[in-house]
Amino acid sequence: MATGRFIAFEGIEGSGKSTQIRLLQEWLESRGRDVLFVREPGGTPVGERIRDILLDPSLPEMSDIAEMMLFAASRAQLIHQHVRPGLAAGKTVLCDRFVYSSLAYQAYARGLGRELVWTTNAPAVDSVLPDRVVLLDLSPTDAMARARARGRLDRIEAESLEFHAAVREGFLREAESDSARFLVVPAQGDPEAIHQLIIAGLGELFEEQSPRPRTAGDASS
Amino acid sequence: MATGRFIAFEGIEGSGKSTQIRLLQEWLESRGRDVLFVREPGGTPVGERIRDILLDPSLPEMSDIAEMMLFAASRAQLIHQHVRPGLAAGKTVLCDRFVYSSLAYQAYARGLGRELVWTTNAPAVDSVLPDRVVLLDLSPTDAMARARARGRLDRIEAESLEFHAAVREGFLREAESDSARFLVVPAQGDPEAIHQLIIAGLGELFEEQSPRPRTAGDASS
Repeated sequence: MATGRFIAFEGIEGSGKSTQIRLLQEWLESRGRDVLFVREPGGTPVGERIRDILLDPSLPEMSDIAEMMLFAASRAQLIHQHVRPGLAAGKTVLCDRFVYSSLAYQAYARGLGRELVWTTNAPAVDSVLPDRVVLLDLSPTDAMARARARGRLDRIEAESLEFHAAVREGFLREAESDSARFLVVPAQGDPEAIHQLIIAGLGELFEEQSPRPRTAGDASS
Repeated sequence: MATGRFIAFEGIEGSGKSTQIRLLQEWLESRGRDVLFVREPGGTPVGERIRDILLDPSLPEMSDIAEMMLFAASRAQLIHQHVRPGLAAGKTVLCDRFVYSSLAYQAYARGLGRELVWTTNAPAVDSVLPDRVVLLDLSPTDAMARARARGRLDRIEAESLEFHAAVREGFLREAESDSARFLVVPAQGDPEAIHQLIIAGLGELFEEQSPRPRTAGDASS
């Protein structure tokens, strides 16, 4: 059975994940890869309904545990419905956020602790971990300026600068403890230059398992 | 600090929980009790939004794990926002469904297993367990006839008779293993007679901790 590649993008709000995922998707597709892009929370009909609840600024009174469970529910559905079948079909799955966001936001920034968040998420993740995690690292001050420039802040974006600083710290700790999986990329500056850093960092992943020989007639440059 | 009483009502769809909760609430209020009625899933703004997802018949492709997490999320919010504060304020909390429904539906009928469902729900329940659980026991054939008579079936009501039979079996197993907490009441027959069985079974709970002395001027009969 064909086995695809699973790459998760992580980072605080405003760190440029959407832009970098789009650039990577284009790059992969130009090389003949079948790419499946999904996002968290959401990515499925059930998950998008959960996303609406999680980001709704009119629902501020949400307990930390309820929030953690909602993210896990959306993740469980996404893994079940898209990620696992996509990987089995040989696709390259690009995911905007994954379980490391739950660790950074819920375990570190909300203070629920790493063990509780992992234990709760284990049945959702169902052993489907990314081959690589691209962490776009940016100072919270810069990131929040970008998020604000996009318009009205959602429930989580509207948290304090201290909260987003704690989230960043959580991501960096996860990256340090799982350095073979994480690719930490400074997310300040020209998107194209950041894209090149990501390709350089991930290149090996796609050389190892080339979907088809590159020939003169190939769409790849 | 005053401590109220927490009574959960459990049973398969159509077993008459709503009617019996209403009768018990009236009985308690006529005795001067401050009653807080809540339901699962739902009971809070966050929880009602989760309930909409869980019962939506247009969302049949929901993974068992996602479903379990959504119930747990709604429960976490309910405990945090209403049950714990209500009990602390000395109220009698009547809850339409609780964690035993997750055990019966998810652990037994869906086959996720008791350990996984308990582990996932533990942070949601947060050690707030009911003083008593009233299990309204009814054959699935009778119960589904009642549910159908009410109109269009929701996503869970629309499951097979075998599924509802497995749910009933799950409830009975839980009741057997926790017999001091459970009051199993046959739910076939006249609602008023069933109500009397419930009062007889719960009476001790309210005698132990009378909220105020019963006097001639009391509203109680």
